[in-house]
Amino acid sequence: MTKEKVSKKDFNFPLVLGHEAAGIVESVGPGVTEFKQGDKVIPIFISQCRECRFCKSPKTNLCDNSGMPEPDSRLTCKGKKLIQYMGTSTFSEYTVVNQNAVAKVDPAAPLDKVCLLGCGICTGYGAAVNTAKVEPGSTCAVFGLGAVGLAAVMGCKAAGAKRIIAVDTNPDKFDKAKEFGATEFVNPNDHDKPISQVLSDMTSGGVDYSLECIGNVGVMRSALESCVKGWGISVIVGFTNVHDLSTRPVQLLLGRTWTGSAFGGFKSKDGVQQMVKAYMDKKIKVDEFITHNLTLNEVNDAIELLKQGKSIRTVMRISPE
Amino acid sequence: MTKEKVSKKDFNFPLVLGHEAAGIVESVGPGVTEFKQGDKVIPIFISQCRECRFCKSPKTNLCDNSGMPEPDSRLTCKGKKLIQYMGTSTFSEYTVVNQNAVAKVDPAAPLDKVCLLGCGICTGYGAAVNTAKVEPGSTCAVFGLGAVGLAAVMGCKAAGAKRIIAVDTNPDKFDKAKEFGATEFVNPNDHDKPISQVLSDMTSGGVDYSLECIGNVGVMRSALESCVKGWGISVIVGFTNVHDLSTRPVQLLLGRTWTGSAFGGFKSKDGVQQMVKAYMDKKIKVDEFITHNLTLNEVNDAIELLKQGKSIRTVMRISPE
Repeated sequence: MTKEKVSKKDFNFPLVLGHEAAGIVESVGPGVTEFKQGDKVIPIFISQCRECRFCKSPKTNLCDNSGMPEPDSRLTCKGKKLIQYMGTSTFSEYTVVNQNAVAKVDPAAPLDKVCLLGCGICTGYGAAVNTAKVEPGSTCAVFGLGAVGLAAVMGCKAAGAKRIIAVDTNPDKFDKAKEFGATEFVNPNDHDKPISQVLSDMTSGGVDYSLECIGNVGVMRSALESCVKGWGISVIVGFTNVHDLSTRPVQLLLGRTWTGSAFGGFKSKDGVQQMVKAYMDKKIKVDEFITHNLTLNEVNDAIELLKQGKSIRTVMRISPE
Repeated sequence: MTKEKVSKKDFNFPLVLGHEAAGIVESVGPGVTEFKQGDKVIPIFISQCRECRFCKSPKTNLCDNSGMPEPDSRLTCKGKKLIQYMGTSTFSEYTVVNQNAVAKVDPAAPLDKVCLLGCGICTGYGAAVNTAKVEPGSTCAVFGLGAVGLAAVMGCKAAGAKRIIAVDTNPDKFDKAKEFGATEFVNPNDHDKPISQVLSDMTSGGVDYSLECIGNVGVMRSALESCVKGWGISVIVGFTNVHDLSTRPVQLLLGRTWTGSAFGGFKSKDGVQQMVKAYMDKKIKVDEFITHNLTLNEVNDAIELLKQGKSIRTVMRISPE
């Protein structure tokens, strides 16, 4: 998501996947000044060079120096180049990352928990607090209750939202959403009316903020159209880029705002450090996202659990022992 | 534009058109406290009741009590009901309006000039200063150089924009745009590349703000995609609601914001008064929008001039004398 288009190279083969992780510095290369062997770190798919006009602006976290120059790679296997996924490739015992895209974290932080702060939790939480800038007393709707959506619910609650309407076609997610702060629950399959109409009826005209945490252009439209005219803000959080999103112009002419963010708008290194601290200070939940612990050898089982809606996050250890 | 959908009644017949005007109060009905006979006024298609939750919010100008209850009308002709266009119907010697949708203006204000503050100028100017909230030193692009677009250019200049790129397929508009503050001029017909690419190349990655002042969903897409990632804001100003607007999700995921406003986000009564004062204080241009003066009998000529791109605003006197 760090480039105008998702680079083809990210999806070519041979590719090492994985981008949400935590680890320990094994060694540092020339010019690395911020890290030393043994540091606990979280790699991030967006860098923070602190030098470019994007890093220098308080308005965005999209460092202009993210990603790697094509067709380079820092990984090889038996002499053959491997493609590095989003500059991270964390489904691996070792990876090589740029110091601008790694956050050093508290030595006391449990890596098998804070690894989740490398993407999903920051993405959802930040979308609510940084991008939507949810206000106290407001009404929010979160579409999709995977880890990103639950983190968005947690962000809405932290920001002081009064009503947080959790929307998912899988009602098994509602208990978990409640634990994170959701106050109402809507299963679109229970309604004949469009979900935007259901939410409008529940809220006398629409919600103040909606967050799309799925990556589906139809849901993006529903989320926008669920917002109240005049000031409703809809944030796109879920990733997809295959089809166009669309709506009627009057939806925006009547004062709704459609926007989005990557990594929840957090400046990557600073944000991860801030969120790890919040976790250590018990100000945000992380453990509660983890429904399964498996090893990388069991990755296919992990994906099957996710597809079946049975897991929120599966933390995978790289080696079985 | 004051309702979720443009009401069918606004486009049925018999209908009295016209909504950008100025006049003099001829008489007041029961309960009218703010106006008396002889007051100079500007009717507005959005009301400001000061009571509803929208009027009470600083975030919007969309009064919840705009428009009239269907199928009522305040106009009749030979005993037959006439439909009132947007609550105004100003192509008429007399009209009847709600006091919540009329602004009293300086008795010294020339009505044949400040009539333009009843819609187009406030719409474009406010879109820049109120909706986009253009910042000093920024780079803006304005698509469409009719009265609304020229007012948007004027708003960008007033807000302190450093570069204002005026975009139109009719290069005859460029001189006028320069007069209002545009610094660069682009005719999309002069380029083989998409206009978003042309603007991106001119600005090292895109403009900070773009304003669509045409009402064309293709141009709305171009305007959004002309914005810089991270913080670019695109405001829809031109009205259309026949087709969907669309773009790829990544455009928003990369931090662009798509929004819009009606009447430039000005609280209607307060905004018109403020803009009339600005005109009387010589802080905004109005006379410069007027290219023709005709009578209502010549309305077809006025429309033909507009269609041919030969006029900016034609001020029409209601009666020929």
